[in-house]
Amino acid sequence: MCAFKLLVFGALLLTDIACNGWLFEHFGEKYRETDDVSLWPLPQKYQTNPTTFKLSASSFQIFHAKDSSAGPSCSLLQNAFRRYFSYIFDHVKKHGTKEDKVSDSELTELQVQITSTDPECDGYPSLKTDESYQLSVDQPTAVLKASNVWGALRGLETFSQLVYEDNYGAITINKTDVSDFPRFAHRGILLDTSRHFLPLKVILANLEAMAMNKFNVFHWHIVDDSSFPFMSRTFPDLSQSGAYHPYTHVYTPADVKMVIEFARMRGIRVIAEFDTPGHTQSWGRGQPGLLTTCYSGSTPSGTFGPVNPSLNSTYEFMTRFFNEISTVFPDAYIHLGGDEVDFSCWKSNPDIQKFMEQQGFGQDYSKLESYYIQRLLDIVKATNKGYMVWQEVFDNGVKLKADTVVEVWMNNEVEQELLNVTGAGFNTILSAPWYLDYISYGQDWQKYYKLKADTQIHVWKEKPDYKNEMAQITAAGFHALLSTPWYLNRISYGQDWQGIYKADPQSFNGTAEQKKLVIGGEACLWGEFVDATNLTPRLWPRASAVAERLWSDENVKDISSAYTRLVKHRCRMLRRGIPAEPLFVGYCPHEYNGL
Amino acid sequence: MCAFKLLVFGALLLTDIACNGWLFEHFGEKYRETDDVSLWPLPQKYQTNPTTFKLSASSFQIFHAKDSSAGPSCSLLQNAFRRYFSYIFDHVKKHGTKEDKVSDSELTELQVQITSTDPECDGYPSLKTDESYQLSVDQPTAVLKASNVWGALRGLETFSQLVYEDNYGAITINKTDVSDFPRFAHRGILLDTSRHFLPLKVILANLEAMAMNKFNVFHWHIVDDSSFPFMSRTFPDLSQSGAYHPYTHVYTPADVKMVIEFARMRGIRVIAEFDTPGHTQSWGRGQPGLLTTCYSGSTPSGTFGPVNPSLNSTYEFMTRFFNEISTVFPDAYIHLGGDEVDFSCWKSNPDIQKFMEQQGFGQDYSKLESYYIQRLLDIVKATNKGYMVWQEVFDNGVKLKADTVVEVWMNNEVEQELLNVTGAGFNTILSAPWYLDYISYGQDWQKYYKLKADTQIHVWKEKPDYKNEMAQITAAGFHALLSTPWYLNRISYGQDWQGIYKADPQSFNGTAEQKKLVIGGEACLWGEFVDATNLTPRLWPRASAVAERLWSDENVKDISSAYTRLVKHRCRMLRRGIPAEPLFVGYCPHEYNGL
Repeated sequence: MCAFKLLVFGALLLTDIACNGWLFEHFGEKYRETDDVSLWPLPQKYQTNPTTFKLSASSFQIFHAKDSSAGPSCSLLQNAFRRYFSYIFDHVKKHGTKEDKVSDSELTELQVQITSTDPECDGYPSLKTDESYQLSVDQPTAVLKASNVWGALRGLETFSQLVYEDNYGAITINKTDVSDFPRFAHRGILLDTSRHFLPLKVILANLEAMAMNKFNVFHWHIVDDSSFPFMSRTFPDLSQSGAYHPYTHVYTPADVKMVIEFARMRGIRVIAEFDTPGHTQSWGRGQPGLLTTCYSGSTPSGTFGPVNPSLNSTYEFMTRFFNEISTVFPDAYIHLGGDEVDFSCWKSNPDIQKFMEQQGFGQDYSKLESYYIQRLLDIVKATNKGYMVWQEVFDNGVKLKADTVVEVWMNNEVEQELLNVTGAGFNTILSAPWYLDYISYGQDWQKYYKLKADTQIHVWKEKPDYKNEMAQITAAGFHALLSTPWYLNRISYGQDWQGIYKADPQSFNGTAEQKKLVIGGEACLWGEFVDATNLTPRLWPRASAVAERLWSDENVKDISSAYTRLVKHRCRMLRRGIPAEPLFVGYCPHEYNGL
Repeated sequence: MCAFKLLVFGALLLTDIACNGWLFEHFGEKYRETDDVSLWPLPQKYQTNPTTFKLSASSFQIFHAKDSSAGPSCSLLQNAFRRYFSYIFDHVKKHGTKEDKVSDSELTELQVQITSTDPECDGYPSLKTDESYQLSVDQPTAVLKASNVWGALRGLETFSQLVYEDNYGAITINKTDVSDFPRFAHRGILLDTSRHFLPLKVILANLEAMAMNKFNVFHWHIVDDSSFPFMSRTFPDLSQSGAYHPYTHVYTPADVKMVIEFARMRGIRVIAEFDTPGHTQSWGRGQPGLLTTCYSGSTPSGTFGPVNPSLNSTYEFMTRFFNEISTVFPDAYIHLGGDEVDFSCWKSNPDIQKFMEQQGFGQDYSKLESYYIQRLLDIVKATNKGYMVWQEVFDNGVKLKADTVVEVWMNNEVEQELLNVTGAGFNTILSAPWYLDYISYGQDWQKYYKLKADTQIHVWKEKPDYKNEMAQITAAGFHALLSTPWYLNRISYGQDWQGIYKADPQSFNGTAEQKKLVIGGEACLWGEFVDATNLTPRLWPRASAVAERLWSDENVKDISSAYTRLVKHRCRMLRRGIPAEPLFVGYCPHEYNGL
């Protein structure tokens, strides 16, 4: 047996072992890793070799290759060089003086070569960004090639993951070749800053963790019913009255800029979601007249419903508001929400009833919803932005632009089952197996389905139906994005990362063309039960399971190999200051230092 | 309506409102609190009044009453005065100079009066400690009376909880009378430092949080199968070989001393658990010959089972070991574990088989287990310590000392159900309602029941059977301690604190005499899935629900009142540096500053 593991215990053993060829093979075949290396997400192609090189903090350099289109003026890369240099050497206490003579087995530099004419140093990543890279680690120089800075960022992360300490604490790397690219273009994390306010520090730390996992989209669910922390220059009253607190619980324009720039430096798009016409209670506080007045009989009840779709003033407001949003957020897409619109308030309002009549909608309030969404889409289209929407917008037959991204979050079969069961008047029990537990005990459940507090719903089917939804959306030619199995706010006791890891966005019945329309997925951490106290450990390393599913080859799915690598990856995140929670019993050589 | 809430918005409104008598009544009746005050756990008797006093950081003092048996030499109290002064004034930025003239509505001092001859300044709390106190807040002096320092600590916590900032930021307290005592004498938290090592900092922070919730027992499950972080002077090899790392992942004698003293200063007992004969894999690494050699057929399999009960050397080791433990931990009780002994290894070993024959145990290995436990109890008894054990020890009919505390953690009915169902060869589904979900998905489940990985167990009964166990233990005259509904390592989506809050240790069929034998309960946070990254927010404020159940009157059980108070209590914990997670949507004026 060619025991590579022995090698890292001491170079003296090298001669005792006859190792020929590569120890690590392509993902499709079995491979082994040293105890000290753990790549996450696993690269598409990856070969390493027992030959090791040492890295010295006093002599090692990351710099621009001579023939690179990027140079020292590319601050994005300069920042990344500094960041990854720190990750590699931060724990090294004493730096020796630089020696004149390079030792035989030293790796002295990583050359980064950007091959496109435009390295995109000052640009923003997009859905079409090429994130591929090639990395070759050999003496005395490692070379990282990418067509632009975005691929270089991914390659730098991989390079830093290849470095480890040998048994004597020496910084070591193996001769390695990597050729890598993402399986999906859209690999996102949704954070919700409405139900609980998240301090900037927490958002930035999680962007940092996203980069460690090669995520490239921060879906910022920035406002919702509970609060409106986004400070609008056009409508400052929205946060003045709608935030939990107008000074301590808001994101100023400068804050938002910082998040966007911090994300850009890490190759992460920021897609803001301004969800309407539902989920807008907090909007109403600073924008009187925007929401529908609910009626109790013939008099206003004092409560408000969704945005009022019958008034011209609504569309004037939305035009001005989204004009601002389209300039604040540079990404080509805005997420417009469109989920969970409750019709009861609309139904109660005599003006809305009249409007329904005028428009010939009869009693079909989904037509009113579609009418609103259609006008909103036209408004946003005029800003030259693309849009993302939750699946209901598609389900309701709204006419969408060809490049619309539809995000699937519901599990229709479960929902249908619930409606059937409860419609028949039965109490049932929810057993919530791996995939289906997004409907669970507690208030969240009551909110979505308006059931009695003591209702018990038993749903047991093991094959969730988000697959049908993915099939339908892509059959209609739209881009689809999967979230259903990745509602990470849902928790259950045990190793739930395994179910998260197994879900696959392309595992539905459809043609190759349809599969191509699946642009990726998002791990969603809704904010009902998380804030700065518990968000980061709840998200990591569970979201890392999604990261590998969205980056690596579809055949990378062995749970026990994933477990071994993920345990080490989480220890690496700890060492880099991210309090990622443990997968199971065990320890990290360097435990988390915070509380 | 006597709107007390208005008062705190400005003293000018005072004259507009006709308020007579107490606003806040005893627990049995409805009461209201100001928006700014929130007592947790709720005192037994508590009356407050609209009259408010201000506290100034520059003039307010906590000191010993003239007729107190404790004075400035009582460092436990001096420390507590400093701690609570900080909690009350820490956020105040500018301290004014002390004024000569005391304003009309100022509270200038809290006098602490210890009434017993021996204040117990240098003692340790015990199961019999009187923790009652009386607190009277009136101008110009508040008086806290307790028979000893332990009651004074509880009263200081209550006093600090009564203080709030008015709308102008002024530190305020209402005229108040409190007469308080705990419902149960044993109110514990179990932390597990074996499955994951917990840095000292994390343990100390959680002791601090325990004091904020009037918990008085730290059940330190210090070693287990996974690792042996306790550094023994007598047997240093136990941690040298059994810890995850012999230097970075151990508790030195100095560490243990610090934990005990830090806990003592907060009125918290430290009860160490050294669980045998099962759960001892890590012991075997540093103490060869202690564990049973498992056999595969007629040859040793290379694995080890529980402690070998057939050898004299085992009892010699235990005698020396527990002699050390009895001096290291000053508490009158040691927890001896005794849970989950797996007989398969014993059965495989020919020496054990021979011993069984010699002792006339037949094939009944529970007799062998009892034999071991009996000898261990005798060893510990000789050190003059009392002992606590898990319920199996009682269930197996081991002869126990009259003062033994039996801890109930299993839900026999569920377990029986599982055995019945799986014994019949059926796959079943576990739906895990509120109380029953201690058996859940994941490896934990497999560990306990040795089922196939894909087994699904459906258990649905709503009345757990720990009540029978409590009835049996107390009918036999033993002290019982409840943990079953408080395995806080189990998690589920939503507001699971409600189920935790509703459970009651005395709600079983039994006589008044039996009920008196219930000494309390423990919230257990087993370590499979928690470490420094996520322990504190997972424990708090869920453990706070247990705290109120164990301290307050049994009639304090209204969920919506508890919700309102607990939300504020968790914000207070945040402000004091404890990252307690949110109960639901909302915010705290001062959010957590960490990550």
